[in-house]
Amino acid sequence: MDKKSTFEGLKAVYINCTLKKSPEVSHTAKLMRVSEARMRHEGVNVERIRLIDYKVATGVYPDMTEHGWDQDDWPEIVKRIRAADILVIGSPIWLGEKSSVAQKLIERLYAMSGETNEKGQYSFYGKVGGCILTGNEDGLKSTAKNILYALQHIGFSIPPQADCGWLGEVGPGPSYGDIEWEGERLSEPAGFANEFTKRNSTFMTYNLLHLAQMLKEQQGYPSKGNSASDWDQGERWAFENPEYR
Amino acid sequence: MDKKSTFEGLKAVYINCTLKKSPEVSHTAKLMRVSEARMRHEGVNVERIRLIDYKVATGVYPDMTEHGWDQDDWPEIVKRIRAADILVIGSPIWLGEKSSVAQKLIERLYAMSGETNEKGQYSFYGKVGGCILTGNEDGLKSTAKNILYALQHIGFSIPPQADCGWLGEVGPGPSYGDIEWEGERLSEPAGFANEFTKRNSTFMTYNLLHLAQMLKEQQGYPSKGNSASDWDQGERWAFENPEYR
Amino acid sequence: MDKKSTFEGLKAVYINCTLKKSPEVSHTAKLMRVSEARMRHEGVNVERIRLIDYKVATGVYPDMTEHGWDQDDWPEIVKRIRAADILVIGSPIWLGEKSSVAQKLIERLYAMSGETNEKGQYSFYGKVGGCILTGNEDGLKSTAKNILYALQHIGFSIPPQADCGWLGEVGPGPSYGDIEWEGERLSEPAGFANEFTKRNSTFMTYNLLHLAQMLKEQQGYPSKGNSASDWDQGERWAFENPEYR
Amino acid sequence: MDKKSTFEGLKAVYINCTLKKSPEVSHTAKLMRVSEARMRHEGVNVERIRLIDYKVATGVYPDMTEHGWDQDDWPEIVKRIRAADILVIGSPIWLGEKSSVAQKLIERLYAMSGETNEKGQYSFYGKVGGCILTGNEDGLKSTAKNILYALQHIGFSIPPQADCGWLGEVGPGPSYGDIEWEGERLSEPAGFANEFTKRNSTFMTYNLLHLAQMLKEQQGYPSKGNSASDWDQGERWAFENPEYR
Repeated sequence: MDKKSTFEGLKAVYINCTLKKSPEVSHTAKLMRVSEARMRHEGVNVERIRLIDYKVATGVYPDMTEHGWDQDDWPEIVKRIRAADILVIGSPIWLGEKSSVAQKLIERLYAMSGETNEKGQYSFYGKVGGCILTGNEDGLKSTAKNILYALQHIGFSIPPQADCGWLGEVGPGPSYGDIEWEGERLSEPAGFANEFTKRNSTFMTYNLLHLAQMLKEQQGYPSKGNSASDWDQGERWAFENPEYR
Repeated sequence: MDKKSTFEGLKAVYINCTLKKSPEVSHTAKLMRVSEARMRHEGVNVERIRLIDYKVATGVYPDMTEHGWDQDDWPEIVKRIRAADILVIGSPIWLGEKSSVAQKLIERLYAMSGETNEKGQYSFYGKVGGCILTGNEDGLKSTAKNILYALQHIGFSIPPQADCGWLGEVGPGPSYGDIEWEGERLSEPAGFANEFTKRNSTFMTYNLLHLAQMLKEQQGYPSKGNSASDWDQGERWAFENPEYR
Repeated sequence: MDKKSTFEGLKAVYINCTLKKSPEVSHTAKLMRVSEARMRHEGVNVERIRLIDYKVATGVYPDMTEHGWDQDDWPEIVKRIRAADILVIGSPIWLGEKSSVAQKLIERLYAMSGETNEKGQYSFYGKVGGCILTGNEDGLKSTAKNILYALQHIGFSIPPQADCGWLGEVGPGPSYGDIEWEGERLSEPAGFANEFTKRNSTFMTYNLLHLAQMLKEQQGYPSKGNSASDWDQGERWAFENPEYR
Repeated sequence: MDKKSTFEGLKAVYINCTLKKSPEVSHTAKLMRVSEARMRHEGVNVERIRLIDYKVATGVYPDMTEHGWDQDDWPEIVKRIRAADILVIGSPIWLGEKSSVAQKLIERLYAMSGETNEKGQYSFYGKVGGCILTGNEDGLKSTAKNILYALQHIGFSIPPQADCGWLGEVGPGPSYGDIEWEGERLSEPAGFANEFTKRNSTFMTYNLLHLAQMLKEQQGYPSKGNSASDWDQGERWAFENPEYR
């Protein structure tokens, strides 16, 4: 089979949680594009959302216009996430943490966790998630932990090495893709030559594709033992632990 | 097909990282047994390891007897993990964190990440991981983040809702399964009636099984785009990002 | 000396980072008021800010109206923080993390870290910080870590036991101060009787006061060894480590 | 006054939580020595403990020989900590986290939190804490958060900028002080020229000294509002919050 066609039919959404509105330059976007380009090269339908360019309300309900907010673009955005097989969250790192925009995204995703699919599972079951992070010095792993944990908590599956990013040496310094620092031109854009970043962004991209493909072929997870609706109706799948009786 | 037979042939290892040596009572073990019993009920081959009962050396090499330690049970333990499809790490929570025994386990697992399988992938690729945590008041999610992140970093896949546990109300209080507190007998063992703990331990157990089964049938992940050996030999899978050239 | 007068002259700002706009009920506010009342009782000048009721822009500059935002209430808010000796950040816990509003607050505080006082120290030197958190089940310590770390990073001092909060048993349940849950009236508001929460909110409050008082009497930290301006001008305080030469 | 004499009489303990036994080279020790040398230069009495060289038992009791362990050097070590005004914890970073040895240290410190001083406060009240961390690529802030949080939780005070360390660019690379990498000699030991690391280790050192000096002069914290013993005896410091009645 033609390798290029393997992943055709898959759909991915990349959400950039930069603090900067368009058209300001987002360093995180530069690394996200590398992964996006890979996916497109593999025939995947890729969408890109820069969250701060939208009017997304703050809160923990699916539609905040029902809770006192004048406008809320979230219901439209979540439709695009629902239509995708893969969600990649990008974020800058500030003081060692994901951005407030990324935190808001997670709050809004979490607000959907009451919804279930036709099997009674949380509605993000069957999708896979990853993240792309950039900072100038520290915090990739701790930020990735929080994002990947939140995703798996609400139903996403996490393949191996599902995060990637770039960090410079500790202390102030250029951000990913900067071409100058403190007035001096760099020999190449910061981080572009980093072998580890290139490798991990590749591995992340393909692992997301492989697992998404696998789950798509299986039509997601069987509902035995994980259907919230079935549980609520008293189903215990023919087993009650003796200690609990 | 008989549902009971679906998961036969799968093998799981549960590692309890309690700070207490046998035969002291481990509260975490009580919750781990619920999940283990479920797996056995589904025909899975389940092994249980209480890490502190072994002489596992401290360090970041596969065999610390080659680095100045007299004894190291780790090489034997890692064989059992390698033979399994599923790894579940159990840990108590102390001051909001996993135990030092769990941290040592992760250091030793991490030390194996230089090894690759026959496809050139990290050797834990194709396995799935989860965790079971108990504390009396706080720290389940933050502890789970660290454990699940470490697992996915070294090659494990993480299905949805791959953690479970029990916590009491904030402040001092009984631990999971305690039958008395401050001299008074409890109406039932602490946490045993908690619906959320029961549900999540069930969901975790089945999601680990479903994903392990899926990966086993697929013989793990295809090596395209994630083989460390291929990468080291210059393979880039027919694509070089324009920005990187 | 009259104990009541000891803390007179101190000023504290409590910032509530609830996701809910006024006049919705904030559970976190209920616990914050306990600490605020204590401080007022001790003669402290206490201000309360509910951040989401203001138009605070997103970004990492002191005034975002200079960076493309139409409005930014932050410059007014930071004046109130600068005038205070004590800053207490309150936040609800969502999926184990502080709110996006709290994250935005930290981003904006961090943006001020370029400013220095007359000694050349970061401008928050000499102030003390603490936090108050409420959630229904998990995440107090991990959330407090992030907030307290950020505060000390930008110049605040952290006294012992500088955080407090309330969490219920793991799983869905009432939030702090709720008087009913799933349609049933509770015997008392959730968490109000929790001895640990009462004690820790008291200890936090007094430790903030004691340290703030001490630092005020000493006019903050001496500048030896911590003045950013002096460092930038080459001051090394009569010592150069041999290894660094 | 002679500046050199200001800090005379203070005592500091530096505990290195490297995973490597003596005489193996600890990269973390190299940075710890810079801070230690500063303190000695200021007349401070400095002790150094390499924890893994001792037989410290695992567990959460003050003396584990009373709980089934043959040997436990902890009671001797904790005496040295009790005699000091300042505690600095050093740790390498592995997979983004502090070492298992550092986690064990925190478990053992936490086990002492039942003890109170003559004012009825937790016994570490009046002492200050900081941390020094080294890794080759990531995790300084998240590791520092955990260590500093644990210290303040059990009674230590945290001055501004109480952590320091070194990290290289993301990906594999030399550790702090390494003089070669992948067979090539480096122009200078890794990290030694990093201005940020030099500055922060200086600031941390002096801020620990300033706050320790201040607390020593004040004989620690007044006991109003923070004495565990007084609380247990019903003392509420002339105030009961109306909402709690």
